[in-house]
Amino acid sequence: MTKAIQSSLEFARSHHDRFLDELHEFLTISSISGDPVYEKEMQLAADWVADRLGALGLDRVELLPTAGNPVVYGEWLNPDSSSPTVMIYGHYDVAPVEPLDEWDSDPFAPFLRGDNLYGRGSSDMKGQIMACVAAVEALKLRAEVPLNIKFLIEGEEESGPSHLSDVLTTHHELLESDFCLNTDAGMVGPECPSITYALRGHMGCDLHVVGPSSDLHSGAYGGVVQNPIHVLSELIAGFHNEDGRVAIPGFYDKVREIDEAQRLMLAKVPYPEEKFLMETGAPFLWGETGYSPLERTIVRPSLDVVYFEGGSLKGAIPSKARAAIGMRLVPDQDPKEIYEQTSNYVRESLPEAVTWKLEFRYGFPAILVDVNTPWVDALTNALEAVWGVKPALIRIGGGIPAVIDLKENLGIDSVMTGFSLPDANLHGPNEKLHIPTWKRGVDALIHFFYNLADLQDQ
Amino acid sequence: MTKAIQSSLEFARSHHDRFLDELHEFLTISSISGDPVYEKEMQLAADWVADRLGALGLDRVELLPTAGNPVVYGEWLNPDSSSPTVMIYGHYDVAPVEPLDEWDSDPFAPFLRGDNLYGRGSSDMKGQIMACVAAVEALKLRAEVPLNIKFLIEGEEESGPSHLSDVLTTHHELLESDFCLNTDAGMVGPECPSITYALRGHMGCDLHVVGPSSDLHSGAYGGVVQNPIHVLSELIAGFHNEDGRVAIPGFYDKVREIDEAQRLMLAKVPYPEEKFLMETGAPFLWGETGYSPLERTIVRPSLDVVYFEGGSLKGAIPSKARAAIGMRLVPDQDPKEIYEQTSNYVRESLPEAVTWKLEFRYGFPAILVDVNTPWVDALTNALEAVWGVKPALIRIGGGIPAVIDLKENLGIDSVMTGFSLPDANLHGPNEKLHIPTWKRGVDALIHFFYNLADLQDQ
Repeated sequence: MTKAIQSSLEFARSHHDRFLDELHEFLTISSISGDPVYEKEMQLAADWVADRLGALGLDRVELLPTAGNPVVYGEWLNPDSSSPTVMIYGHYDVAPVEPLDEWDSDPFAPFLRGDNLYGRGSSDMKGQIMACVAAVEALKLRAEVPLNIKFLIEGEEESGPSHLSDVLTTHHELLESDFCLNTDAGMVGPECPSITYALRGHMGCDLHVVGPSSDLHSGAYGGVVQNPIHVLSELIAGFHNEDGRVAIPGFYDKVREIDEAQRLMLAKVPYPEEKFLMETGAPFLWGETGYSPLERTIVRPSLDVVYFEGGSLKGAIPSKARAAIGMRLVPDQDPKEIYEQTSNYVRESLPEAVTWKLEFRYGFPAILVDVNTPWVDALTNALEAVWGVKPALIRIGGGIPAVIDLKENLGIDSVMTGFSLPDANLHGPNEKLHIPTWKRGVDALIHFFYNLADLQDQ
Repeated sequence: MTKAIQSSLEFARSHHDRFLDELHEFLTISSISGDPVYEKEMQLAADWVADRLGALGLDRVELLPTAGNPVVYGEWLNPDSSSPTVMIYGHYDVAPVEPLDEWDSDPFAPFLRGDNLYGRGSSDMKGQIMACVAAVEALKLRAEVPLNIKFLIEGEEESGPSHLSDVLTTHHELLESDFCLNTDAGMVGPECPSITYALRGHMGCDLHVVGPSSDLHSGAYGGVVQNPIHVLSELIAGFHNEDGRVAIPGFYDKVREIDEAQRLMLAKVPYPEEKFLMETGAPFLWGETGYSPLERTIVRPSLDVVYFEGGSLKGAIPSKARAAIGMRLVPDQDPKEIYEQTSNYVRESLPEAVTWKLEFRYGFPAILVDVNTPWVDALTNALEAVWGVKPALIRIGGGIPAVIDLKENLGIDSVMTGFSLPDANLHGPNEKLHIPTWKRGVDALIHFFYNLADLQDQ
């Protein structure tokens, strides 16, 4: 190990407390992007990130305006234009916090208990952003590093619509990079660093069902009208077959079956059924027969009704009911085609006593990233240097829209990793960040940047 | 017709405008009993009623306190203790107004359009209370009427728990009456005055289903946990068989089948399928095969899920889902027994991947009133005198808890009628009162009181 990287690692270690104090401050900003109530906080968070990047002594830091929340851009360029360019992606917005009563402490009053820092955004992903910032600050000790760094921190990841692709189009040249480092992908366990090479896609649609023209007294009309809640329930009950497979005709037509080699590789990932039981708190697991729980969350598609709303406690037969449906897609399912199949299914299933509308809300295809690149090698070696084991090459069940946006608009792949653990409760109550893992993450990122710089040295 | 009743009818007619102005004022009070936000309005409404009864010159008017909203009591007693005593029941509270955006005008800014007065409570039942008040005021022109009148106007009819039975127990002697006039039962159509002799019962329970211990990211966990929304949907889908019958074992065991004579009587009520279609605005009717729509709403039991709540638009797999179930019961179904049957059904239907709780909320048995009484005769003749046709003797699908409370606590029957029309949108948006029918109702009540007084004269 060169003296330079040693000094960077030492710098980071001796400044952990300051970095965590800064993260603490960042976490107090309630930057919930999905709610106009938090508009001011979104601007506060963007300014906070810009100030923090400014304090790094970058060459240029600015807010790129969008029709929604601004994107924070910062760059540190090397005079040698042939140096590799890494884009560091992040998002400063966080998920909503409801139901608030399930939090043990205020989501925006970060709280350290044992090894964990609790607060909305601690793992997803203000903590990840701060790990990148800390690593870059440590890196800057080396006077001239043959590496170009471009920060791109958006504010609309947790809620649609995102204007990231507009920014990528408008500032195409400014943002040109060799690849993107995305630390929003998490890891399998505290002793199992991970590189994510595949993401499931996501299609969301809303189904509205209307029966009677207004809410009806259930005494006067109970027994003569078909209740939209019942109709919608019957439809949802039919979404899955007994074997846990989605019953929508055509749904599996384009699903790429995993082969034996992939199955064996996945079987090596330490993610047994017990882990899922512990993380979810469900009394029993459930799902498609013939696939392991891990396979079901990453190589198989899924369908969940994430919202059902109908009627009220006043006790009338409701005029309407509504459900929001989310489907996680795998290669090569096409979101638009799946939407059409769903629409056909609804048309054929619903009785004529109701009218209905299926609204397409969003659609992203699944992503598969090439793992035979110098960037993936550089990250693999960095993670191994810190954890002492080769990282797991994993696929994850969630989607990261920015990965698709960057591929489509700038033509670059994302190298996906991260230092949030599976029990971090992303999007749930009591979201937390495991501090010892986060510290190792900072070290790994320092190694990663040096490895990238060495590509140029060679 | 005696001179006395003529002068009363004339008095009412010449004061219609004032009575309607008073109703207008009464309707501006947003006395929604189900919501603590309206606590002040509940008191305002009770005071308004007490003031209005006071202005009638009654012997005694007071608020009877309860653990909830007060009951307004007012009496006008005849020196001759052998005179018949009629209790006039009413409720000054109204149903909630959501969804507000479906109202064409403010529910508490009463609005006259054509023959209808729009506003929450106009038909259910502030308008009915004012019809009674107007008739009693007209009656008082007759110096000495051999009739005792006791007003009992409660404020907890539209939302549980009601404390009416506590008041009936505490003030048992004060409230002693020969029977109760309840004008909360409505009529079949503008040309078809009605006397209601049977009500369906009502059992309400809430079902809570819990799967994962907290909301889960649908990307990370979609495919491994059973979604409580799906589980609850499947259960609801199973509540009815293909033939529209409730599938809960034992549900029909005690149902009293109607005989051919009752069926023929019901067939005479002018309430065809088209009327139900028009009133409900549903594209098609639905229900138990083998019974007419009218039969299904009054002599057959029904089950409706009136509320379904699960998940949120943030898109996670929810930890829990909840449904409120309302069942309309017929003689001789027992609410508690039906609750037990439902509980057994849920136990046997739900998968072990969820935990659940079925909460009993309320239960009232169905009511059948004896129609061979002088009070029913007096009302029959009164309605016929005004409409020129004999009133329809009907059963209605809704329940009126006060009818049960009065039977159980004071041992008296209720004579049920009313001047709200089937399209009045009780509990729905744009609730309205048909003014010409209301005016005929005032006349009919005057006839009714004179008929009652004549019972004594004879």
